[in-house]
Amino acid sequence: MPKADVIRIAQAIFTVSDLAASRAFYVDLLGMNVLHEEGNALYLRGVEDREWTLKLQQCAEGEPPLVRQLGYRVRDAASLDALLELADTQGLPHRWEEELDRPRMLRLQDPFGVPVSFYHEVKTYPWLLQEYHQHRGPGLQRVDHVNVMVPDVKAAVDWYGQELGFRLSEYTVDEQEAYWAAWIQRRGGVHDLALTNGPGPRMHHWAYWMPDAMSIIRTCDILAGARQPERIERGPGRHGISNAFFLYIRDPDGHRIELYTSDYITVDPDFVPIRWMRDDPRRQTLWGAKTPRSWFEEASLLEAFDGGVQAYQEGALSGIPVHVI
Amino acid sequence: MPKADVIRIAQAIFTVSDLAASRAFYVDLLGMNVLHEEGNALYLRGVEDREWTLKLQQCAEGEPPLVRQLGYRVRDAASLDALLELADTQGLPHRWEEELDRPRMLRLQDPFGVPVSFYHEVKTYPWLLQEYHQHRGPGLQRVDHVNVMVPDVKAAVDWYGQELGFRLSEYTVDEQEAYWAAWIQRRGGVHDLALTNGPGPRMHHWAYWMPDAMSIIRTCDILAGARQPERIERGPGRHGISNAFFLYIRDPDGHRIELYTSDYITVDPDFVPIRWMRDDPRRQTLWGAKTPRSWFEEASLLEAFDGGVQAYQEGALSGIPVHVI
Amino acid sequence: MPKADVIRIAQAIFTVSDLAASRAFYVDLLGMNVLHEEGNALYLRGVEDREWTLKLQQCAEGEPPLVRQLGYRVRDAASLDALLELADTQGLPHRWEEELDRPRMLRLQDPFGVPVSFYHEVKTYPWLLQEYHQHRGPGLQRVDHVNVMVPDVKAAVDWYGQELGFRLSEYTVDEQEAYWAAWIQRRGGVHDLALTNGPGPRMHHWAYWMPDAMSIIRTCDILAGARQPERIERGPGRHGISNAFFLYIRDPDGHRIELYTSDYITVDPDFVPIRWMRDDPRRQTLWGAKTPRSWFEEASLLEAFDGGVQAYQEGALSGIPVHVI
Amino acid sequence: MPKADVIRIAQAIFTVSDLAASRAFYVDLLGMNVLHEEGNALYLRGVEDREWTLKLQQCAEGEPPLVRQLGYRVRDAASLDALLELADTQGLPHRWEEELDRPRMLRLQDPFGVPVSFYHEVKTYPWLLQEYHQHRGPGLQRVDHVNVMVPDVKAAVDWYGQELGFRLSEYTVDEQEAYWAAWIQRRGGVHDLALTNGPGPRMHHWAYWMPDAMSIIRTCDILAGARQPERIERGPGRHGISNAFFLYIRDPDGHRIELYTSDYITVDPDFVPIRWMRDDPRRQTLWGAKTPRSWFEEASLLEAFDGGVQAYQEGALSGIPVHVI
Repeated sequence: MPKADVIRIAQAIFTVSDLAASRAFYVDLLGMNVLHEEGNALYLRGVEDREWTLKLQQCAEGEPPLVRQLGYRVRDAASLDALLELADTQGLPHRWEEELDRPRMLRLQDPFGVPVSFYHEVKTYPWLLQEYHQHRGPGLQRVDHVNVMVPDVKAAVDWYGQELGFRLSEYTVDEQEAYWAAWIQRRGGVHDLALTNGPGPRMHHWAYWMPDAMSIIRTCDILAGARQPERIERGPGRHGISNAFFLYIRDPDGHRIELYTSDYITVDPDFVPIRWMRDDPRRQTLWGAKTPRSWFEEASLLEAFDGGVQAYQEGALSGIPVHVI
Repeated sequence: MPKADVIRIAQAIFTVSDLAASRAFYVDLLGMNVLHEEGNALYLRGVEDREWTLKLQQCAEGEPPLVRQLGYRVRDAASLDALLELADTQGLPHRWEEELDRPRMLRLQDPFGVPVSFYHEVKTYPWLLQEYHQHRGPGLQRVDHVNVMVPDVKAAVDWYGQELGFRLSEYTVDEQEAYWAAWIQRRGGVHDLALTNGPGPRMHHWAYWMPDAMSIIRTCDILAGARQPERIERGPGRHGISNAFFLYIRDPDGHRIELYTSDYITVDPDFVPIRWMRDDPRRQTLWGAKTPRSWFEEASLLEAFDGGVQAYQEGALSGIPVHVI
Repeated sequence: MPKADVIRIAQAIFTVSDLAASRAFYVDLLGMNVLHEEGNALYLRGVEDREWTLKLQQCAEGEPPLVRQLGYRVRDAASLDALLELADTQGLPHRWEEELDRPRMLRLQDPFGVPVSFYHEVKTYPWLLQEYHQHRGPGLQRVDHVNVMVPDVKAAVDWYGQELGFRLSEYTVDEQEAYWAAWIQRRGGVHDLALTNGPGPRMHHWAYWMPDAMSIIRTCDILAGARQPERIERGPGRHGISNAFFLYIRDPDGHRIELYTSDYITVDPDFVPIRWMRDDPRRQTLWGAKTPRSWFEEASLLEAFDGGVQAYQEGALSGIPVHVI
Repeated sequence: MPKADVIRIAQAIFTVSDLAASRAFYVDLLGMNVLHEEGNALYLRGVEDREWTLKLQQCAEGEPPLVRQLGYRVRDAASLDALLELADTQGLPHRWEEELDRPRMLRLQDPFGVPVSFYHEVKTYPWLLQEYHQHRGPGLQRVDHVNVMVPDVKAAVDWYGQELGFRLSEYTVDEQEAYWAAWIQRRGGVHDLALTNGPGPRMHHWAYWMPDAMSIIRTCDILAGARQPERIERGPGRHGISNAFFLYIRDPDGHRIELYTSDYITVDPDFVPIRWMRDDPRRQTLWGAKTPRSWFEEASLLEAFDGGVQAYQEGALSGIPVHVI
């Protein structure tokens, strides 16, 4: 049986402790488009997205905010069959689920405990890309990637590569040449999925592509104007890894969002993954800026397969990069 | 008696044939801030403006849209006294007027028939410069200049220079070395007032400073998104004159607005005005782009001192620059 | 036998009448990097390119400047085998060629007379993407696409789709629903190849990706600074088609180069190609700007398979879009 | 006798320990234009400057790098007479000096020990503003301001205001309402001179205006490309004070250069200076970013009137703002 053909990272579902506060952040300040709204959930998208790409759902009373699932688009029904067989073969917890506009999603827990879903049927809507008069705030454009913190980066790179066909773009090693982080892709850009060493599985951040660096600068100005500079955790700056211009912000529940633009293409078959030493000052920010400690330590909880919080464990590699504040 | 100390160009009052349509253009698309609103008038400003800088007023039935006055700020009451004496001495029609937030304005018709007003008392409001979360659309920043079409440019340059202390920044001559256009200033930038040869007096355009070139690009995108590309008359581009990045758009009544950014400073006493030949291809747009014929021919009517439309006459110099579409 | 797996458009070879003049344009003004230089040829690249992507070669005495070939990268040797079989089967003129750093290229004339080459072996070099201190001029980044003018657009779309697996992103039809232009891709962006109705086969333009819109604005300023505004043929502006920000410039021999940035991704299997009517004012430039007639009429000659100039014929559809200057 | 009419801050002279290293920084990386070059000195300018604005001079053996003088342009000879009288009256050390292109400069030590010079005669040169093809690196545009660290900010504000007519734009107070810093101007922008509490007199930084925020981003990329990220001390970011987009870099001798753009105009007579509390997180960087400790502690030595290093003393106010790394 051929393997699944994964197209790209495509959606996330977050639970939040106060949907009104999240709405103020994502819609009023970041300007995301509300594609649907239900009593306890908002379905958001960027201006290039033809479907909702971020669902925000009110937490049940007393439950912590977390990430319910990370979703990938696959090419066709055969890809779902292949994934079902993979889950059966490897004994991965799985079931069929549905979400608004996505009648049939295969939800499974990957070998590292990350709740992932796969779908090919989806109802799409006209995009807003050229409806510039309707753009609000800095104009988030489209889903770009997700970053997951896991205890064993190398094992995750291998599994996603062998089973789902992800290709390596860049990676970071420590002085013993152990993988500290990796950027892997299906779509021909730098990454659909980044994997970082640390206590996990947890979601490190969820990222949107921006039209240009100035729209990222505007995000900072807007958050500052709203007297919420504390939402800005790191950046803006230029990554050494990926060469992208970036900003990391935190939503009212601490879910981390990256705004990201201007990386490079990776479609050539002879592309050689780029290797970085963990403590190279230009690795994280090409300009040498240090990274706040919270960026290495804090991440979003994930939903366990049977509900509640997915347990997590320490990273295999100890320490964090030296260029930290 | 010392002469008036004119600070800068500061306000304009336009009449419009459909206030709702004008509001859709200036507020909904250009994102101007509504400082006040009355039954038949809107008082608008840019994000750096501390006072209203553009008043839009519904035309009376059957009257054409026009420019009621162009207003300058002066330093003090003594400046108004000096202007009053000037008006008396030269026989310029004049009277005291008041407008919202401006209790005492000296309104006069300059020797070329342009309705100008001068004031120093004005009620100001907190600006929105750092209230970035409240900025809308491309974010017009502040009044920059006005351009008036007159039959005799040289005479106007002389009068504004001798009587009001304007200094010349740049000028255009034809092959006989006659002045075809001039840019004069009080504020230390390239111009508060531009004078262009043509049928006049009429107002050629009213200009706002923009934060950067990308905000001008966004204006184009917004107008296109709203399916109103026809509002874009000329640009975007880089002026040879002034070196500014620019865009000319037309409001629903045809009043021409320029969005303008990135000129240079002119405060040095040894600054030598820059001279251009009328038919130099880099003069109007440094990149050599041709200018639409409408830009040379169309302009806003002005209000006569006793109401109605100020009569106007042909320009002294015939022809228009050759780089025209 | 499986079909060839074409990765992307990758190189072009132009002949030029004065290599020093071309060098002044491409290297001194556009800042392209000289990867190799031989007596009568320059091998150029953008900062993200890992191989030369544009070869400029001095014309022999008395020969006109033209495009010798347009080259695509393929995945592997099997792809070349498939292409060889395709050429044999369809009777397309073909032979093996080599170029510097590319030991084995399959050169053929496509059914429309366009000289194309395919290769998978190539010597690559470290890129300059993060060697920002070595970037010059506006910083051309990487090859983006080529546009070819052909008499029968629909036939070309069909052939490239069926034989080489190109997918349609956008297309333009006239009032009889005949294809007037099409944008087709292999790489997951808007296009590797555009096809435009007109006298052909000729090359309409060769395009580089730019880091952002401001780098395109800088190109205009640089050409104007060098007193060569006439090199700017069209733009800058925003395309309706592709949503990209663009500029068209002409090299000293009239070869047309597009600088292009910020389109969208097309990897989803349910992507629906976007259809435009030929005379929609927002199609060519979203802002409604008219296109100069030269843009529709002028194009580069192509090399015939046995040398000399490839003969060409009129476009199947008469007329040009109405939004022309 | 009327007071001196100071036009603007206009030049600085630095001594440097290795002129070749300074040249590599200012010319090769920052792209400043070399207007003149002598055996042991470089005379640099930005693209809008019509005269040299920064002179770099090789230190004598064993002498520390320092700032020899900060120069202001004045309106006329009468202004120099007024300054001479002021120096005599107040007993300020002074003498006539000359520099290349400036035959007659009044050099004095202000009451706080800062070596300042004043001149009105200067030889100017064609600017490079529209010679875009000659711009190099990020394109520094023109002198903007200087920042001097002094023990008693309020005393300096008063003296510059009373004797030289500087007007206050913004100021910072501590919890006892003592002046911690102030921004004062002559030119109609936010400041020609900033004064900061701290051990002084020392020069905190020397600033150039940049065309836009993206040119500041490019500076970071260029320094990182050259493997000199350590030259970047603070930023890029948006100042709360001044609203400008900024970057602070350090030259090979530690002289601090600010690249600065997009503040606002201050010409209105009713402009009310903006007051900030020292520990407001949005004061230094609107986005809340913390400032490195070196920025508060390190500054350039000044030349004493009779040569050697000007002695300096602690700031009157103890402590530094809390938003420090």
